[in-house]
Amino acid sequence: MNNFTFHNPTRLVFGKGQITQLSTLIPSEANIMVTYGGGSVKKNGVYDQVVAALSNHKYIEFWGIEPNPTVETLRKAIAKGKENKIDFLLAVGGGSVLDGTKLIASGILYEGDAWDLVLKGGYGEAIPFASVMTLPATGSEMNSGAVISRAETKEKYGFFNTFPSFSILDPESTFTLSPYQIACGVADIFIHVVEQYMTTPRQSRIMDRWAEGILLTLIEIAPKIKANQHDYDVMADYMLSATMALNGFIGMGISQDWATHMIGHELTALHGITHGHTLSIVYPGTLRTLKEQKSEKILQYAGRVWGITEGSDDERINRAIESTEKFFRSLGLLTRLTENGVGEETIDKIVERFNKAGAAYGEKGNVTGDVAKQILQSSL
Amino acid sequence: MNNFTFHNPTRLVFGKGQITQLSTLIPSEANIMVTYGGGSVKKNGVYDQVVAALSNHKYIEFWGIEPNPTVETLRKAIAKGKENKIDFLLAVGGGSVLDGTKLIASGILYEGDAWDLVLKGGYGEAIPFASVMTLPATGSEMNSGAVISRAETKEKYGFFNTFPSFSILDPESTFTLSPYQIACGVADIFIHVVEQYMTTPRQSRIMDRWAEGILLTLIEIAPKIKANQHDYDVMADYMLSATMALNGFIGMGISQDWATHMIGHELTALHGITHGHTLSIVYPGTLRTLKEQKSEKILQYAGRVWGITEGSDDERINRAIESTEKFFRSLGLLTRLTENGVGEETIDKIVERFNKAGAAYGEKGNVTGDVAKQILQSSL
Repeated sequence: MNNFTFHNPTRLVFGKGQITQLSTLIPSEANIMVTYGGGSVKKNGVYDQVVAALSNHKYIEFWGIEPNPTVETLRKAIAKGKENKIDFLLAVGGGSVLDGTKLIASGILYEGDAWDLVLKGGYGEAIPFASVMTLPATGSEMNSGAVISRAETKEKYGFFNTFPSFSILDPESTFTLSPYQIACGVADIFIHVVEQYMTTPRQSRIMDRWAEGILLTLIEIAPKIKANQHDYDVMADYMLSATMALNGFIGMGISQDWATHMIGHELTALHGITHGHTLSIVYPGTLRTLKEQKSEKILQYAGRVWGITEGSDDERINRAIESTEKFFRSLGLLTRLTENGVGEETIDKIVERFNKAGAAYGEKGNVTGDVAKQILQSSL
Repeated sequence: MNNFTFHNPTRLVFGKGQITQLSTLIPSEANIMVTYGGGSVKKNGVYDQVVAALSNHKYIEFWGIEPNPTVETLRKAIAKGKENKIDFLLAVGGGSVLDGTKLIASGILYEGDAWDLVLKGGYGEAIPFASVMTLPATGSEMNSGAVISRAETKEKYGFFNTFPSFSILDPESTFTLSPYQIACGVADIFIHVVEQYMTTPRQSRIMDRWAEGILLTLIEIAPKIKANQHDYDVMADYMLSATMALNGFIGMGISQDWATHMIGHELTALHGITHGHTLSIVYPGTLRTLKEQKSEKILQYAGRVWGITEGSDDERINRAIESTEKFFRSLGLLTRLTENGVGEETIDKIVERFNKAGAAYGEKGNVTGDVAKQILQSSL
């Protein structure tokens, strides 16, 4: 096990009817800006609950943080925040609203342009922020990371600042998500887990088991969600799995990968494909391309997650990779580039970007432009 | 899944050589009291590392917090802390030193007698404290609980205040633990997990898998620890399992038991048996007595943890209980009361105490004096 420091101060408030707790969780003297996406919270009842809970607080609203939040939109929110001397942000919506809000929280304290902060990769200062999270996927509700896009240049990068002071998760708010949102959410969670798990073998027995525990949960609940999206306990498992997949709980003392995410971000930046969907396209290719390097871990995954115990090493590895891709397809996602209208010319663009950035991703730092090319070609 | 709030602000600093980080983790202006047990830290090198790391800090020492820390000893530490205007405590040692330090941290801010705080069950105020934990067992390093004894009356109760601001865990400090300390530590961790796991079925798939993940880890590493106590990765897994078993990570949204702990505390209070050892005596009896109530969860445990998949429900349940007791015996622990010099008269005393307190423990609140009697009689 590698040395590590773990520290996650976010208060997680989970369950039915918990949005009412906003009234006490936010300091009464706070000068709040509530940030929203496109309006789905008005359909699922969350907006009304937030308004009711904040009846004794002073707040303004900022609407319109889009999926894959752009710095172009966030600059407007930062200006509004500065102008109104906002000292507390509450993000209400999915991971994009929260990710955008993380940049706003730093941008309000920063003199220069917000895109500089993204290019720095992080900024230690931020005004306090919290969330009511309605779309289980990104794990943003209990980590310090965000992913921000720049529409103008079709770029998309990670950004880190501080943790939400609290996040409220009510599984009932997931009852009205679209099947496609859920499919992309489940894929996103699954890949968050394997980015931390499918790396160097024998680093930590507990981290391995916990990662496998989330994967087994996702595989078990995916058909149940399809069958009945109003089954509270199933939706609670789904929601909790998103948070636990990317809050550091399964990442202690282990090496991590994240190459699939880096490639996926390019597919979103260039083609607008939803984040979780890009991962389901890229990941089987990552495994096919790096199956020798990852063989020991894939074999463990084959046995413990998919129950594949018979056949040669090669056969079990191939079956595990096939099972992974089939799982994504069972969610309703198209797992090949060509099925999503992406061809060779996009591969060339991504390789060019990777080479220009000197990319060296993955747990061994060997996913360069050339390797990304192999991964994408095997995903055509 | 039940509604829950999770919040664990402790910073976990884990790995080789991490004790040096004390120099920056404790504020430079702090007026520190370092608390110790009986001196094992002078043998394993931890004391020298702490002294070196604190060379630029101002501190005094308090020695002699005993296993099952007594209020009688802690009153002296509180007096010394008040007298020296201590504003930061650093516990160096095992769970007893840290548990005692939690009471000191509150006692320093309290006018009355420290035993009042224990009888209250908790106290919201405490001066900041942290730990260098050397004995993986209690999980105290990342939770707000402590167990305090009163020698005079042979009483032992739980007490809750606040979380350590940080805990440093270096697996190398476990290399010199005695086999008995390790056996009791592993049993303690195991029972912390099952107190949260072996309760109401189908509450949370992830919490179930994570609990099982720790149990599987313990079962896998126990013989490896015996074979080579200097295997860093094995000892790191052992140390991390202790922290993860009782920091709230496996307890979200689920009902909990803790009856075995309450009975075990009485065995320690009355006979001085080491905490982890008492649990290994009581727990198989708890399962034998409550096997109908817990049947669905025991069957899950039989299959997933022990690989017991054949036979009738009854047969699998019985085999799982036998496997559990055999595991404790494989650690070198004697799992029967009579083997530990405890007879019927102690059972009567415990039942009397339970009845007097109106005890109603367990996930269903049905472990009364009568049920405790059945549990203990089946453990004779």
